[in-house]
Amino acid sequence: MSRGAGDAEPGRGGDSLDPADWDALKRSFHAAIDQAIDQLRDIREQPVWRPTPEAVKARLSSALPRRPEALDAVIRRFAEDILPYGTGNIHPRFFGWVHGSGTLAGALGEALAGLMNCNVGGRDHVAVHVERQVIGWCREIFAYPATSSGLLTSGTSMGTIIALAAARDARAEIDVRQHGMAAAPRRLVGYASSEAHSCVAKAFDLLGFGRDALRLVPVDADFRLSLPRLAEMIAADRALGFHPIVVVASAGTVNTGAIDDLAGIAALCRAEGLWLHVDAAFGGLAVLTPEFAPRLGAVAEADSIAFDFHKWLQVPYDAGAVLVKDAGAHRAAFADRRDYLAPAKRGLAGGEPWFCDYGPELSRGFRALKVWFTIKTHGIDRLAEVIARNCRQARRLGRLVAERRELELLAPVSLNIVCFRFAAALDAAALDRLNEAIVAELQLSGIAAPSTTKIGGRAAIRVALTNHRTRDEDLDLLLSEVRRLGREFTSAPAPLLAVDGR
Amino acid sequence: MSRGAGDAEPGRGGDSLDPADWDALKRSFHAAIDQAIDQLRDIREQPVWRPTPEAVKARLSSALPRRPEALDAVIRRFAEDILPYGTGNIHPRFFGWVHGSGTLAGALGEALAGLMNCNVGGRDHVAVHVERQVIGWCREIFAYPATSSGLLTSGTSMGTIIALAAARDARAEIDVRQHGMAAAPRRLVGYASSEAHSCVAKAFDLLGFGRDALRLVPVDADFRLSLPRLAEMIAADRALGFHPIVVVASAGTVNTGAIDDLAGIAALCRAEGLWLHVDAAFGGLAVLTPEFAPRLGAVAEADSIAFDFHKWLQVPYDAGAVLVKDAGAHRAAFADRRDYLAPAKRGLAGGEPWFCDYGPELSRGFRALKVWFTIKTHGIDRLAEVIARNCRQARRLGRLVAERRELELLAPVSLNIVCFRFAAALDAAALDRLNEAIVAELQLSGIAAPSTTKIGGRAAIRVALTNHRTRDEDLDLLLSEVRRLGREFTSAPAPLLAVDGR
Repeated sequence: MSRGAGDAEPGRGGDSLDPADWDALKRSFHAAIDQAIDQLRDIREQPVWRPTPEAVKARLSSALPRRPEALDAVIRRFAEDILPYGTGNIHPRFFGWVHGSGTLAGALGEALAGLMNCNVGGRDHVAVHVERQVIGWCREIFAYPATSSGLLTSGTSMGTIIALAAARDARAEIDVRQHGMAAAPRRLVGYASSEAHSCVAKAFDLLGFGRDALRLVPVDADFRLSLPRLAEMIAADRALGFHPIVVVASAGTVNTGAIDDLAGIAALCRAEGLWLHVDAAFGGLAVLTPEFAPRLGAVAEADSIAFDFHKWLQVPYDAGAVLVKDAGAHRAAFADRRDYLAPAKRGLAGGEPWFCDYGPELSRGFRALKVWFTIKTHGIDRLAEVIARNCRQARRLGRLVAERRELELLAPVSLNIVCFRFAAALDAAALDRLNEAIVAELQLSGIAAPSTTKIGGRAAIRVALTNHRTRDEDLDLLLSEVRRLGREFTSAPAPLLAVDGR
Repeated sequence: MSRGAGDAEPGRGGDSLDPADWDALKRSFHAAIDQAIDQLRDIREQPVWRPTPEAVKARLSSALPRRPEALDAVIRRFAEDILPYGTGNIHPRFFGWVHGSGTLAGALGEALAGLMNCNVGGRDHVAVHVERQVIGWCREIFAYPATSSGLLTSGTSMGTIIALAAARDARAEIDVRQHGMAAAPRRLVGYASSEAHSCVAKAFDLLGFGRDALRLVPVDADFRLSLPRLAEMIAADRALGFHPIVVVASAGTVNTGAIDDLAGIAALCRAEGLWLHVDAAFGGLAVLTPEFAPRLGAVAEADSIAFDFHKWLQVPYDAGAVLVKDAGAHRAAFADRRDYLAPAKRGLAGGEPWFCDYGPELSRGFRALKVWFTIKTHGIDRLAEVIARNCRQARRLGRLVAERRELELLAPVSLNIVCFRFAAALDAAALDRLNEAIVAELQLSGIAAPSTTKIGGRAAIRVALTNHRTRDEDLDLLLSEVRRLGREFTSAPAPLLAVDGR
C-alpha cells in the first residue's frame, strides 16, 4: 500500500483509546484469561452454582463511570465479582434446561473474534467466508443440498423466526412483506405439537400470525405429534377457509426429548403443499450418532431447520443457525439494500451474497469463528461421541430411576432428557412442592443443577444431558442426593414449610 | 459444597473435551491472542483492507472435519488465513458505513465472556446483574427513568424490531399477540422520514404490518423529517380509516447524519397519542457531547430508543440495546414462559425478571461483559471525547472539501458524516462511475476505506467517522488521494473502462 507523508508517528497511542504500553496490555490479557481458564480446569472442585452475593449486586448497581479506570483494576473487579458467579453450565453436574458446557477452543475463537472485530452483515472479507464454511458443514451434517442457504443466529429462537418468515412470505397468496398480514385473503395458519418449544408460538406472534394461528396438535403416549390428528386439523382448517402453510416438527422436544415422526410429517407436508420446518435445537444433532441417524435422517426433507451450536456442539454462547432449502425464498424474505448498502463489483463492498439479506440483522458479529475453532479442533466425530455418551447416560439414569422404589420415571427416555420425581405418600400439591424443593436445594448446596418442569401436570425433576464433562458417577451422586433430600424433607416435622422458610 | 465419594479423579481431562495439558493450553491462548494484539498495535502500518486470497477461500470450502486437529495447528491456520483479512474497521483510515473500531478492553471482555459461557436469557447468576448494570448506564446516558426496561441486542436492527413490537402490541385495538395482525379492526400504520434506515422498513415487514404501512415522510433541505408533512399525513391516514400508532425519528440518519427535530416530533406524538421510537443507532450517543446535547436531549421523551455500542462506543461487534419507557408494555410484548422455564423463589431458576421476557431470544450470550469492560476502563467522558473529535474532524473535512475546486460537498455536515464527490466535466452517469471507481481503488490499494451512497440521485463518496484511531492527517491523506485518483482517472485514455477492466 502507499502511505501518506502525514504518517509521521504511526500507530503508537496518540489520543486513540489504544494502550500506551502494549506489552503491559498483553500481560493483563494473559493474567485475566489464565484466571478464567483456571476456573474451568478446577470446576469439578467448585459448587455447580452459587448465588451472587448482595455486596456484588450492590457494586453492580453503580453510576455510569465517568473517568477511566486502570485495566488491571477492572480485571480485579471482574475476577472478584463476576467470574465466580456464572450460570453453572460449565460444571460437570449442571443438568438444567439444555445448556452446552463450552470448550476452550470455542472460547479462544470468541476471544479472537473480539480482537478482529469484524462485522459480518456483508461485504468482502474473510469472516464472510468462515461463516459460509460453517454453513457448508451444517449442510453436510443434515444432508442438505449445496443450493440451500443458511445463516448463523443467536440461537434457535431467532432461527425459527427467520425460517417462519421465509415460509410465510413464500406461501402467502399476496406479497406479505409489502402489504402486511391483514391483506392476505385467507388467514394463514400453521401446526406444531402441544410439546413444541415456546419459541414457535413466539415466532407466530412476532411475525403477525397471532398465536391463535398456531394450531397445537395433540401428542401420543411418547409425546410425539399425532400424525392422524395433524391431517384432520389441516382438513378442518381448509374446510373453514383458513390457509395452512407450515408445520413445525420437533427433533427432540424440550420437555422429554421426544422426536416427532419426521418422515411421516414430511410426507404429509409434501402431499398438502405445506412448508416443513424442523426445530432441531439440540436433538437434531443426534443425527451424527449411528443410533439416532435412522430416526433423524428425515430432517433432510425439511424446508428449513433451526438448531444450536451452543448446546450439544459445545460452542460458547450464543451460536445457532438456520438452514433454508430454497435459498431464493430465504433471500426474498429479507433482502433490502439501500443506496448506502449498494454492492460493488470490486473492493470491500463486493462479496455477494451478503448475510444481511438472509435475516433481520445488518450488524452481525463474527460468531462463526468460535464454531470454526470448535469443529476444527475437536472434529465432528469426537463431538458426536459426546452426544452418544449423553444419550447412553440418560438411558442408564432412566434405568436407575426405574429400579429405585422411591423414584418414579415420568416420561420415556427418548434421547438425553430424564424426567422423574421422588415419590412419597403426599398429596399431589405437596409432592410437587417436595420435588421443587429438592431441585432448589440441590442448586443452593452447589451439588447439582437439574431443572424442573411439569409432565402431565406433575412436577418433575428434569435432567438434560448436553454436557461433555458429565460422568456416570455425577449422575449416581445426583440420584443419591435426591433420595437423601427426599427422605430428609419428608421425615422432618412440617417438612416443606421448613424448606420454604429458609 | 458437599462432594460425592464417586469423585475419585476430579476435573482432569478424563474423556471430556477439556485439554490434557492446561499449561500448554494457556501458552496456546497467549500466543494466539498476542498475534491478534500485535496486529492491532501495528494496524497503521497495514493496508486498511486486502482481498481474501483465492487460496484461502479454497481452504475455507473444505469438507466437515471428522478427526480432531491440534489446537496449535488450528491457531496457525487462523493466523495465516483469517487474521489478516478482516473487515478493516480496526484501521485508522476505515471510514466506511458506520463501523466502530473496537477497543482492547472490550475485546478482553469478549474473551472472558467466551470462557464463562453464560446464557443470559434469564435465571439467577451474575451475568444478569452485569447486563442490568449496563442498562442502568444506558438510562443515565439518555436520561431515561429508572422504571424503564432495556435489553442488550445484536444491534439497532434487532432493537428496532423489539421496540416496534412493543409499540404494535401496546397501541393495537386488539390483542395482536393472540389474534394476529389480520384481526385488527383498522390497519396499523407508522411514520418515518424518507431518510430513515432500512431496518425500520424491515421491522414493519417482519412484524406483519407490511412496508406499505410505513409512511415515508419527506425531508427538508437538511435531510430532516418535515414536521408539517408528518402532521398532514397522520391526519390523512386517520381520515381514511387507518390507525396511526408509531413515529420513528432518526437521531443521526445513516446517509448524512441528519438529526430529526426530536422535541417537535415528541410534542406531535404526545398530541396525537402515537408511540415515538428513536433510531439512535450511532448519532444518539452524541448526546454525551456538550455540542449535541441540546439537539439530542429530547431523545429522553421517546417511548423507546434503539442504539449500538459497537459503533460510537467502540465495543467489539456485536452489541446494541433497546430501551422502552413503559416496562410493562415491553414485557407484555414478549413474556411467555412454559413449565420448563418456570421461575422459582430460590436457586438458579430465580432472578426475575428474566431477559427472555423482553425480546425474542431465549438463549443469549454475555455481551454485556464487553460493554462493561469498555465503559469501566475508558470511562464515558473519554468515549464522549472520541465522539466530539470525530464530529470536529467531519466539520473540518467538510470545510476542506468546500475549499477545493475539484471537490463538491453533497450534503451539509450535521454530525460525523461527510458526503462529497470528485467533480469533473463528465456526464452524470460517468461522474457517478468515476466516484465509485475512486472508492473501489482506495479500498483495493489499502489506502483508505470510505463507502459510497447516493445523495439526491448522485453517487457520493461517504466518510463516516466513528473511529477513535483516525487523526486529521488520515483525512488529509484521503482528500489528496481522492484528488490524485480523480485526476488520474479523468486524464487517462478511456479512463473508466480501464478501471472497470482491472
